[in-house]
Amino acid sequence: MKDYIKENEQRFFDELFTILRIPSISAKAEHKPDMEKCAQRLRELLLEAGADSAEICPTSGNPVVFGSKTIDASYKTVLVYGHYEVQPPEPLEKWHTDPFEPVIHDGAIWCRGANDDKGQLFMHIKAFEYMLRSGKLRHNVKFLFEGEEEIGSVSLPEWIRQNREKLKADICLVSDTTMISDKVPSINCGMRGLAYFDVKVTGPNKDLHSGHYGGSVANPINTLCDMISQLIDADGRITIEGFYDDVVELSTEDRELLAKAPFDMDEFKEFLDINEVKGEKGYTTPERKSIRPCLDVCGIWGGYTGQGAKTVLPSEAHAKISMRLVPNQLSSKINKLFVEHIRRITPPYVKVEVTPCEGGDGFLIPISSPAYKAASRAMAEVYGIEPVPSRGGGSIAILAEVQKELGIDPLLMGFGLERDTIHSPNESYLLSQLYAGMESIALFYQYFE
Amino acid sequence: MKDYIKENEQRFFDELFTILRIPSISAKAEHKPDMEKCAQRLRELLLEAGADSAEICPTSGNPVVFGSKTIDASYKTVLVYGHYEVQPPEPLEKWHTDPFEPVIHDGAIWCRGANDDKGQLFMHIKAFEYMLRSGKLRHNVKFLFEGEEEIGSVSLPEWIRQNREKLKADICLVSDTTMISDKVPSINCGMRGLAYFDVKVTGPNKDLHSGHYGGSVANPINTLCDMISQLIDADGRITIEGFYDDVVELSTEDRELLAKAPFDMDEFKEFLDINEVKGEKGYTTPERKSIRPCLDVCGIWGGYTGQGAKTVLPSEAHAKISMRLVPNQLSSKINKLFVEHIRRITPPYVKVEVTPCEGGDGFLIPISSPAYKAASRAMAEVYGIEPVPSRGGGSIAILAEVQKELGIDPLLMGFGLERDTIHSPNESYLLSQLYAGMESIALFYQYFE
Repeated sequence: MKDYIKENEQRFFDELFTILRIPSISAKAEHKPDMEKCAQRLRELLLEAGADSAEICPTSGNPVVFGSKTIDASYKTVLVYGHYEVQPPEPLEKWHTDPFEPVIHDGAIWCRGANDDKGQLFMHIKAFEYMLRSGKLRHNVKFLFEGEEEIGSVSLPEWIRQNREKLKADICLVSDTTMISDKVPSINCGMRGLAYFDVKVTGPNKDLHSGHYGGSVANPINTLCDMISQLIDADGRITIEGFYDDVVELSTEDRELLAKAPFDMDEFKEFLDINEVKGEKGYTTPERKSIRPCLDVCGIWGGYTGQGAKTVLPSEAHAKISMRLVPNQLSSKINKLFVEHIRRITPPYVKVEVTPCEGGDGFLIPISSPAYKAASRAMAEVYGIEPVPSRGGGSIAILAEVQKELGIDPLLMGFGLERDTIHSPNESYLLSQLYAGMESIALFYQYFE
Repeated sequence: MKDYIKENEQRFFDELFTILRIPSISAKAEHKPDMEKCAQRLRELLLEAGADSAEICPTSGNPVVFGSKTIDASYKTVLVYGHYEVQPPEPLEKWHTDPFEPVIHDGAIWCRGANDDKGQLFMHIKAFEYMLRSGKLRHNVKFLFEGEEEIGSVSLPEWIRQNREKLKADICLVSDTTMISDKVPSINCGMRGLAYFDVKVTGPNKDLHSGHYGGSVANPINTLCDMISQLIDADGRITIEGFYDDVVELSTEDRELLAKAPFDMDEFKEFLDINEVKGEKGYTTPERKSIRPCLDVCGIWGGYTGQGAKTVLPSEAHAKISMRLVPNQLSSKINKLFVEHIRRITPPYVKVEVTPCEGGDGFLIPISSPAYKAASRAMAEVYGIEPVPSRGGGSIAILAEVQKELGIDPLLMGFGLERDTIHSPNESYLLSQLYAGMESIALFYQYFE
């Protein structure tokens, strides 16, 4: 489809930019109208690309966009999954350009969602359009684009259970992950799950003068820090009771296979500008960020955060605490363990509230399947080198559900790169990856039988 | 002066409210013009009250208002100290009324600065006015109102050194503290010092996706929590090396004397809605908040703090860390110890910057002096009960300087009450205390010889 991309490049940009410009931030209620707008625009794009039908399906949360094209009932069906909402762009001051005004420079598109996941789902629409218009499409194709991936796909499981028939397919094709590098293509054969909590610590019922009370009353910020500090031990292991019970230790063989993916520690440190890495004892850096669970505070706040010195002993302190889980760890169980653990370590001089706010299980994908092999062959042809199987550290909560509820294995052909800094300021997506993705997907259709 | 108050009550409110309405927040640079405005208005009030002269004196920071009245060179001179700037009003959502629109209800004035220190310094202007107009004033009076008390009196020491002659006085009279209760009047005979720092922890050089990197890179929020948690040990003692070296242990007699001030633990816990107190082992709650040093995080922030779940491993985390010091601990020395300690406990996988941003020493006042005795007699007469000497937990950084540089002992006649919640939302000042303060000050002039 190389030539097709060349001929249609400007139109592709125009179309993609119309969805990138919509600030469809699912974490913020005030962006509800943008969710509708973005869903609507995607529906149009699906119809323009050649879908038989495309509809906006209401859920208890943000709408799902569902489109389909039936070529022949006897053909295999590919279900394409993606999400049209994005992470909040904050901190805004670190962006070099407007987060919702895409620009092209240095061979990439710069915009929130350029990669995750608007850019990546767009590849699927265009690869489908090409296959259809060139008369090569020998599959039936369904598209499922949701609006809550970044907030844990809250409403989708229910919608999936209500639409089993509609969603029937042989494989669930997803581009929402990264590959090791554009020199080392990889296919994701497993992802981590997620458990995410808001924790609120309340000390005194009002903000106090730190001179009048300091030393005599527990400070909720200090207490929150004490509690957070206790969650990880000196060996980098999470101290929540029972946390590791369901973690499957990988065999030496599996670890050796994964270790084949190239990793350069000096490059890694230089990219992040850090002197030392940190993580669980006994595991390598690539293992720590993929096959091992972890705990991170994603946000913390309390007291006076303005300029200058306000001498306050605050009433409250807050943290957003997240855990990445590995396959076989159930987020519902971890939720319970975390809440119980926090209750256990809460000292008597403060009150603590824990609110679970996102979760999903991890999963594994068999690399011996025809779909994996077709993807591997397609990418090998585009990149000139066979892709390696890898394990992703991120989470796509809904894919474990798709596997369990619909019996459809996901296939993760992700074309993002580390340099894209998704979820961070200045997200970007290389044009070379956008195009290689389209080509790989088009070839996947040709090789998947 | 009871009658004088009654006759002039409405005028007093009108005058006081003109200064309360000015948001003279010294911690925020954008309020610079409000500092000028407030200083100007105070200058007018001093002249209207009968000062011979009143001037706005530039400093390297916010201006000082200086006024004076000479009755007779042979009389003793009283230097009145106060500050016309206020703490930031945040968190704004917790105020029941506009923080800069004074209202009177439930027998109190509600406004930022109603007590600290606009309300309290206003008592001095009016007591002076009454003494002068009634022909009873047998002292020369000087007024020194600064605009940087809440940010550590940064520029005042230099200005004091340049104006020694102008500031010559026999006593420095200050109302900027609280008394135990309006049933148990007290005179403050010592205050704590302060050391205040901004601490910034940097991990990776950009915000990262917590799925892609979580577990393999130190999270600066977790690390900041670990570091803060290490600053206080299980006995509630500060772990900074050398921190207690200059702390003078009070004698059993002194502790017994201070213990005479009534303290009701149940009332204390109920007022703050806490189940347990917390503090340094071996000391009572009143001791912990007055004669012992302490460490409090006044603010903390980092990562995503908006609504919903953003899965980010942030680049930076920040905290504002303050220490209250006791007399004989020098803030300059504690600054050095803290910076060194933080350097020592900084793990190799993050970078930490420490910026000292406020400081001042504690001090003690002799209770055998004529000024203390005159204040005690005056307050005994107004309250019908002899005031007890107490030690304040807060800090007025400049008074240690006044004592050292000018050789003038401060006398702390403070009329604030705990219920005023200064530095917090819904600051207030009881009218009964405003009036009792004016009367006590007027009587002080009569008894101080």
